[in-house]
Order: sequence, then structure tokens, then C-alpha cells
Amino acid sequence: MTNDRRGITMERLTKIVESIYDQFNEGEIPAMSLPLRSKSNIEFDPKHNVWKYGNMQTSRNCKTAKGATVMLKTLHVIDFIDSMLKESRSSTLREMYYISEGWGYGKFNSQDESNMLAEDLEIVSNCMREDFKLRPEEDGARVIGDITITATNRKGVKQTLNCRDDVPDAGYNIPFNVEKDKVTLKPGTAKFVIAIETGGMFDRLVENGFDEKHNALLVHLKGQPARSTRRFIKRLNEELKLPVTVFTDGDPWSFRIFASVAYGAIKTAHISDYLATPTSQFIGITASDILNYKLKTDVLSDKDIAALKSELSDPRFKDQFWVSEIEAMLSMKKKAEQQALAKYGLDFVTDQYLPEKLTDLGIL
Amino acid sequence: MTNDRRGITMERLTKIVESIYDQFNEGEIPAMSLPLRSKSNIEFDPKHNVWKYGNMQTSRNCKTAKGATVMLKTLHVIDFIDSMLKESRSSTLREMYYISEGWGYGKFNSQDESNMLAEDLEIVSNCMREDFKLRPEEDGARVIGDITITATNRKGVKQTLNCRDDVPDAGYNIPFNVEKDKVTLKPGTAKFVIAIETGGMFDRLVENGFDEKHNALLVHLKGQPARSTRRFIKRLNEELKLPVTVFTDGDPWSFRIFASVAYGAIKTAHISDYLATPTSQFIGITASDILNYKLKTDVLSDKDIAALKSELSDPRFKDQFWVSEIEAMLSMKKKAEQQALAKYGLDFVTDQYLPEKLTDLGIL
Repeated sequence: MTNDRRGITMERLTKIVESIYDQFNEGEIPAMSLPLRSKSNIEFDPKHNVWKYGNMQTSRNCKTAKGATVMLKTLHVIDFIDSMLKESRSSTLREMYYISEGWGYGKFNSQDESNMLAEDLEIVSNCMREDFKLRPEEDGARVIGDITITATNRKGVKQTLNCRDDVPDAGYNIPFNVEKDKVTLKPGTAKFVIAIETGGMFDRLVENGFDEKHNALLVHLKGQPARSTRRFIKRLNEELKLPVTVFTDGDPWSFRIFASVAYGAIKTAHISDYLATPTSQFIGITASDILNYKLKTDVLSDKDIAALKSELSDPRFKDQFWVSEIEAMLSMKKKAEQQALAKYGLDFVTDQYLPEKLTDLGIL
Repeated sequence: MTNDRRGITMERLTKIVESIYDQFNEGEIPAMSLPLRSKSNIEFDPKHNVWKYGNMQTSRNCKTAKGATVMLKTLHVIDFIDSMLKESRSSTLREMYYISEGWGYGKFNSQDESNMLAEDLEIVSNCMREDFKLRPEEDGARVIGDITITATNRKGVKQTLNCRDDVPDAGYNIPFNVEKDKVTLKPGTAKFVIAIETGGMFDRLVENGFDEKHNALLVHLKGQPARSTRRFIKRLNEELKLPVTVFTDGDPWSFRIFASVAYGAIKTAHISDYLATPTSQFIGITASDILNYKLKTDVLSDKDIAALKSELSDPRFKDQFWVSEIEAMLSMKKKAEQQALAKYGLDFVTDQYLPEKLTDLGIL
């Protein structure tokens, strides 16, 4: 983080504290207003082509003991962030939860609560969790292909690594903060991105040399992708002008992985324009792939069915492609993994499946 | 894999096939004998100081349709491994499961079944799964510190990286095959190993510069460690003569993580002398740490209690230290995570907890 970014963050957090102080001072019961963070309150933002929170608001105030406790926690968290910013430290979200043990009445009851408060604070301050120097337990997403990354390491030294030549086969680990002041991207021969759900499939494409043969940049999503992974993909798309494709399993959870990359996740809808890549294209397993390739399937569980039904009322899945995919999956009652393509041998995915899908999209 | 190692593997697998063929040829019903793979059949091997399978055997034969099917699957797997060895390919265990879709009656019913068969084949052939070119979905364990690793990459090119200077803060990803013909280790200033259970704690030690300050080599175990991680630690200990310490949470599952590093895991007891580092020392959270440091705890679940009780009858936990630790945890009915040390701030673990434990062991 440059001092500038740090300065802005400190200034905005200070404003929040000042506002609470001023309300007290004027004899008011302090309150804070936040957008309602649920599926019912996400709206399409035509400017950025992503889904963001709408106008429904909830209010946090100190009229109850519970409300006052939340406000106290907020102030403790701001104080903690302030000390990290001053000392150039960072902390995992889990560490912050444990650190709150020393905050008396401000102690968190669960990590969900402390995570949520960090996100609320992002919304109110219009800063990023990364600005607060808070990071998730780990993300560990990996990238392989011909681009060059310069990142500032813990000692403040800039380190430049080519993601094809200078890293082991496991790839380059995406750091938790991929902001422009920390990480710079330099284009190479890579022409497009394939974001891949599972490690097994990522390694398959690496072993088969798909990246080199087709000038692809392979990014391992590692299931539901971390914020840093989504932000990294967004920057690849925006700055290096690389089209983004997403290659997942064929099940309701994988559809959500795609949606979080392409449209923004519900939990982080306040920063969708920052994390989402609206032009992303789906090349994962579809209902018709399951039929056409006679893939080995698993029967949908009750949870799977509920998730699919919930997606039918999710505004992010309102377009014709997704409605028909979701309905087809509900009617066949089956799902399949991307590695199921191995039924036709280790090369089928790289010799046939992906070239076909990518040619259809005009990428190959 | 050198041709030599490949040659040995092919020879041993061929012998298995020949033996089945010969039994058929002599009018016998083919059978195969295997050690019983359970807690009741592990014995201490005083030569290697690890726990290995004992003398109890189970027999696989073709007297039943089920038995014959297992034999058929075994032959398909050997055939598949043979083709990978000839083509210098590798496959995830999950891919092999899906590939079996094309094997008719030899098709696997679940991935547990195919994983188990791969391990059985290791035992019968006295080879390693890595020799078979079968790898887990991913392991992704990471290492930071001053040693230098030379690894052969997918293009057969040797790549030399220093794990302190040439890698991002996330560390060097340990590859799935860390055998001597693939990976060579060169010592640096690192004097001992800390194998760390969680990513959050690994990152804490990295951010706090514990590796540089104390010449430590940090290895992220990532929960129950993959085989490659355990083998890598074993080689650090055996070849570079680095003492190994293991820093985990304080709960029954973490005790098992330590046991698998130090004594060998029950599932892989046939290769304990290859994977286990018997001189490993535990520096994880103990019952007395929970009391002394008044750590934030969680109540033991029924599963936790059952796991602790099962450990009391596990021969690997028979020594006085473990018996009293397990009994103390059962009586206090509480467990704690390593990140709970953050109660005293972000530096407590590196300024006080670890220096004290390591000094007690004579390592610092």
C-alpha cells in the first residue's frame, strides 16, 4: 500500500469515528446506515455491467444493548486497523477474531460476526478489506502462463517473476493483495484466460501444455474464488485486455462460481465493479455436455435441487442461457464434474472439449 | 522419474500380472495376499523408529464374483499405469476413477475404492504411488526459508529456486513427486524446520520474519499433510540434518497430524520408513498451554471426544507425554487453535510462545 492509499483509508475511518462522536456530542443516539445485504437487494448496475446492492437499507443504532455492542465492536475494529496501518502490519480475519478476546464487551461471539463487520466497514468507508490490511486465512489460487508479475514482498522488495518460466509446475501463488500499488502486470504471449475450478483440472491443462499450445493463461479458482483471485482476473481482463473464460463442474455450486467471477457475489456486491468481470464466458460442463458426452453423473441431492431453484429467482441468472441450463439440470436431476471428461482419456479435454468450446466462442 | 526407477516399477508390476497369469495357467484360482490395513495391525519397527503394518494378512481371491472383479480392476489399473509410464504422463487419482468408466466390469464404484486399490498395489509391488504417476487432487503445501530446491519441470528442464529469495511471500509450492530423481535439496542458512498446521499461522511467521530471525525453515502442512509434504520433511531431516518441529492446534485431529509426520499414518503404514520423521518434536498447543495462556477455547464435540478416546488405544500415542496430554484434554473438555495465541497480539507467537518452546527443546 502506498502512503497515499493508507492516508485515504485512515481519513475515511476517522470520519466514521468522528460522526459517531459528533452524534454523541449533539445528544443524539448514534446510528449508522447500511444497505441490506441479501439477494432481494441486488440490482443490475448498467454502468459497470455488474450486480450491486440496491437502495434497501438497514440501520444500526445504539438504542438497544445489542446495537450499542455492535457500535463498540466497530470502534475497536477501526482502532485495530489504525494500529496495523501505522505499523505496516497485516492480520488474518481469524487473528482479528481472537484479538477481540481482549476487547471486553467488544469481544466477538463468532468469526462470522467479525468477518461481517469488516465487510460492513468496507461499505461504510468505501474502502477495501485489503486497505484495512485484513486477509482471509489463505487463498492460494495459482496461475500458469506467459505474463510477468512484479510484486512487492514482505521486505518491501520488488520481485519480478514470469508465470511460465520462473515458477514451478504448481504455478505462481496469487498474493492476498493484488492492488496496483502492490502488484503490476506485464503482458506476454498469453491471449486469453481460462479460470479453472479444480486443482486436478488445472494440473491436467498444465501437464498437457495447453497454456503453451494455445497461448492460454491458466488460473486455478480453487472452488469459490477468493477476492484476490477475482480481482486478479478482473485486472487481467481490464488492463491486459485478455478475454476470460470460466471452466467449472456442471452443478449448481459451480454456476455460482461462474456468477461470482462474472457478475459479482452477493456477499461482496458493494465492490462488484471492482471484482467482477462481466464479459466472462462459461465453458464449464452444461446439461447438454452431460447428455452429449454421456458423462458419469451423480444424482442431485436435495441441497443441489434447492440451490438450483434458488438460482431461478436470483437476478444474476435471469438470462435465457442460465434459465434453460438450470431447468435442464432440474429435469435430468443429474450433475457432473469437469474431471468426468477423463472417461475418454487424459487428452480428451485438451484435444477436443476445450478447443470446441473455445472455437464456438471465437477465442480459438 | 529416471528410466531406472521406471524400469523397476514396470518390472514389479509385470511380476504381479505374471503371477496371476501363472496361477490361471496352473489351474489355480488366482489369489493375492495383503496386510490388514487397520489400527489393530500396526507395529513398531525399531529399525526405522516408525509404526508399520504387522503380520495380519487378508487374502484377495477370485472365488467370488466380487473377488474376481477386484482382480480385474487391479489388472486394468496396472495396464493404465503401464501406459502412463510409457508415455511419461501422470494422472490424478480422480481422473483414474473416471477413466475406469471405460473398463466395463472393471469400473470403480467410488473413488475411495480406486484410491485404496492404488495403495494396495504399492504394498504388493513395493513401489510408490508416485512411481505409478498417480497423484492426489492437489496438495499445495508451501515452504519458505533459506534452502535451495532444484526440480525437474513438466518440460524436463531443471529449475533451481531459493525458497527465501526466489519465491513470492506465499512460498514455494511443494510438487507432488519430491523423489531424489525429481527434486534435489541444497542446504542454506536454515537450521531447523517448523511444520505449521494452518495457513494463517504460516503467513504470520512469514510476515513477522521468524524464518530469517531464527534461521527457521517454515513448511505449511495444510491440515493433514499430503504424502509429498511428509516425504519432503523427511528428506529435510535425513539429508540436510535439520531437526523437525511440528506446530499445530490443540485438538485430537492435530495430534493425528503430528503422529502422521512423526510416526507414520495408519493408511500409509507400508511406507512409514519413507514418510515419517521419528525425531519430530511437538510444539503445538497443549492442555497446559490452554490453561497457562488462558486461551479462547471451544468445547470438545462428541466426535472430538471419540477421537481422543480412540487415540488412547492407538499404539502411536502410547508414550507418557501423549497419554497425559490426551487425558488432560478429555478432563478439561476443551480444545484451542494455534491462532488463539493472537489474543496477546500479533507478535506474541513469535516473540514469546515459539522462542520459549524452542529453547526448551534446545533448538534455539
